[in-house]
Amino acid sequence: MPAKLPLLDSLYAARARDAMPTLKGAAQADQSPLLSLTYGLADPDLFPRDELAAATAAVLADDAPDALNYGQSFAGLTEQVVGRLRAQGVEAEPENILVGYGSSQILALLPEVFIDRGDTVIIEGPSFMGAVRRFVMSGANLVTVPTDHEGMDVDALEVTLRDLAARGVRPKFIYTIPTFHNPSGVTMSLARRQRLVSLAAEYGVLVVEDDAYGELRFRGDDLPTLASLDAEGWVVRVCTYSKILAPGVRVGWAYARPEIIERLNMFKHEGDSGPFLTRVIARYAAEGRLEAHIAQLREHYRQKCDVMIEAIAREFPREVQADRPDGGFFVWCKLPHGMGATALVDRAAREGVSFLPGVNCYANGQGDDAIRLAFSFLSADQIQEGVARIGKAMRSM
Amino acid sequence: MPAKLPLLDSLYAARARDAMPTLKGAAQADQSPLLSLTYGLADPDLFPRDELAAATAAVLADDAPDALNYGQSFAGLTEQVVGRLRAQGVEAEPENILVGYGSSQILALLPEVFIDRGDTVIIEGPSFMGAVRRFVMSGANLVTVPTDHEGMDVDALEVTLRDLAARGVRPKFIYTIPTFHNPSGVTMSLARRQRLVSLAAEYGVLVVEDDAYGELRFRGDDLPTLASLDAEGWVVRVCTYSKILAPGVRVGWAYARPEIIERLNMFKHEGDSGPFLTRVIARYAAEGRLEAHIAQLREHYRQKCDVMIEAIAREFPREVQADRPDGGFFVWCKLPHGMGATALVDRAAREGVSFLPGVNCYANGQGDDAIRLAFSFLSADQIQEGVARIGKAMRSM
Repeated sequence: MPAKLPLLDSLYAARARDAMPTLKGAAQADQSPLLSLTYGLADPDLFPRDELAAATAAVLADDAPDALNYGQSFAGLTEQVVGRLRAQGVEAEPENILVGYGSSQILALLPEVFIDRGDTVIIEGPSFMGAVRRFVMSGANLVTVPTDHEGMDVDALEVTLRDLAARGVRPKFIYTIPTFHNPSGVTMSLARRQRLVSLAAEYGVLVVEDDAYGELRFRGDDLPTLASLDAEGWVVRVCTYSKILAPGVRVGWAYARPEIIERLNMFKHEGDSGPFLTRVIARYAAEGRLEAHIAQLREHYRQKCDVMIEAIAREFPREVQADRPDGGFFVWCKLPHGMGATALVDRAAREGVSFLPGVNCYANGQGDDAIRLAFSFLSADQIQEGVARIGKAMRSM
Repeated sequence: MPAKLPLLDSLYAARARDAMPTLKGAAQADQSPLLSLTYGLADPDLFPRDELAAATAAVLADDAPDALNYGQSFAGLTEQVVGRLRAQGVEAEPENILVGYGSSQILALLPEVFIDRGDTVIIEGPSFMGAVRRFVMSGANLVTVPTDHEGMDVDALEVTLRDLAARGVRPKFIYTIPTFHNPSGVTMSLARRQRLVSLAAEYGVLVVEDDAYGELRFRGDDLPTLASLDAEGWVVRVCTYSKILAPGVRVGWAYARPEIIERLNMFKHEGDSGPFLTRVIARYAAEGRLEAHIAQLREHYRQKCDVMIEAIAREFPREVQADRPDGGFFVWCKLPHGMGATALVDRAAREGVSFLPGVNCYANGQGDDAIRLAFSFLSADQIQEGVARIGKAMRSM
């Protein structure tokens, strides 16, 4: 092949000419011998390896003709999702559920169905940039609403919605992570949940409730999901097996009103999750195994979170503010005044430790005053060592 | 939830307002007790169930931490693809390869990267509508070039390219299935392959070579792929493990020049094929197992094809023209003058047999003079019975 194909560049679609670089899979980053607190990887010690092997063997022994041929996601998995939702008091039917390749396929389908170039999407600051970048690539204008210790600032949201309406702009959806927020760890209060859902209905705007971490509660009582507070059906709740089972199985799901599910389904150009792994998960999850596994995960991640919080109290300057989350994978640390997160990344790298600087969690350039530490992946000893090294880097600045 | 959400319809993106219905997975169709010759499903008797179970168990025993966490497609699988290509005399490097969720993800990425609304794509008539619909959904204008017993009519292609160029239209790509065509079963001659590749270079148009069936040759010698005839790099070759291993594993791949692979990769919004099943396939395929399996498939499908061709000769009116394909999954039958394919579908349903009417294989309304019969899925006995029933329906018309 010649080094450069003449005229190839002029064949690209407009959207592909200046495409943003891919968000690479997290696992391949950090090849260096750093202690990485950067990514929300699952703890590999907790993968139910033997049970998944047994489930796979059983599916291949009993259902190979269907599991290995062309076909859609296994209907039995949808039924399990419906059953779990009903057990949580949610009215759910199979037509409320869309199974996809992880929540990432669902989050990529949402802009396909709802975003024309120039449409407005409301996000939280900070937020999960993996999702937000997909909205940007579809041509959305982002409006960032701030968050605090109770989650999204719903007063600010109301002002934003009112201002946009005054300018004739109706946002397509509000993207929020109300429970064990990524990156902030915060859980939105019940009062704000109710207000958010009621504002969405008032302004006729959808709410995308990213609930990747909701089942990983360490302490306190479950709060109702936005979807369960929503009598009219403005909420699309996005969930995943990545955090409660294994990211590698690539299966997530959405709950929404049937016409939204149907429309999302129409845009699954890239195909279905397929009949095989969806059967494996259903087989694994039967007989209460998934619930028992989640209980084990909660205890395990609670311990690792506590180890991190205690290490932070011991190793970081007192001016660092780090709230103990009630669940999820992350601790968000506000840095002392004048200490920049990106500068700290460089300093910490010299100590052999990495984490996510806050600027990577905002779409508007904010965030150099904070860092995100993941306690999900490393062992308790490694977490302590990593936090100690970050503390050393902080004190050297 | 209220039956209808006010204002929801006005939230949809333009592309989602009049979206075409999804192409449903083939397996769920034909729930009735019909003998179905409709879909190109793989023969479940040939799934290497035990070997896949062993490969899965081995991956989970040895590599669970990587296989089950976040991560990209397994690099070892890409290396296997590269190795197989090199064994076929193709210069290939890992950066020439993109692994995706079946060829369907690759075929969905192509319009994302190359099609702006109103762009032109050249297709064959007949063609594989699963791919063509994706091009239509991205806003492409289709131009159909006819085919005959040697594949795409390259004289007609040249006229089309010249006419389009005269009107200032440069098509983005030519979509072709040169080997064991779906639906026609035809294999493009070497002379036409050379001419097609040279026309593509002359007019600066990409060629998408859908090579889903190329490894399933029953008789005759392999012809060079378009990609291997293409010194400049205008060809994107799309392949899949669906036909040579199992559709349910949902893994396919593309071979193209690195800048095209890179660009396609940027648009994998819906995520990567993941680290698990790509490892399972690589583990299964090691030590020559895949080559041995393909040899077995070729023999098995050859026998079923022969059964179908013999049954057609015995059961169909003499006026039906059905060529014996050299590979693949399908026999294409030209109906006697005056016999409509859609009318025959209805008549055949009453006999308890189904197949694909030719109109489903054209984007321009042609095709009521032909039907596609798949010999891949049913057993030899069922094929004979199905063909006999279609013959009965034909004679009753």
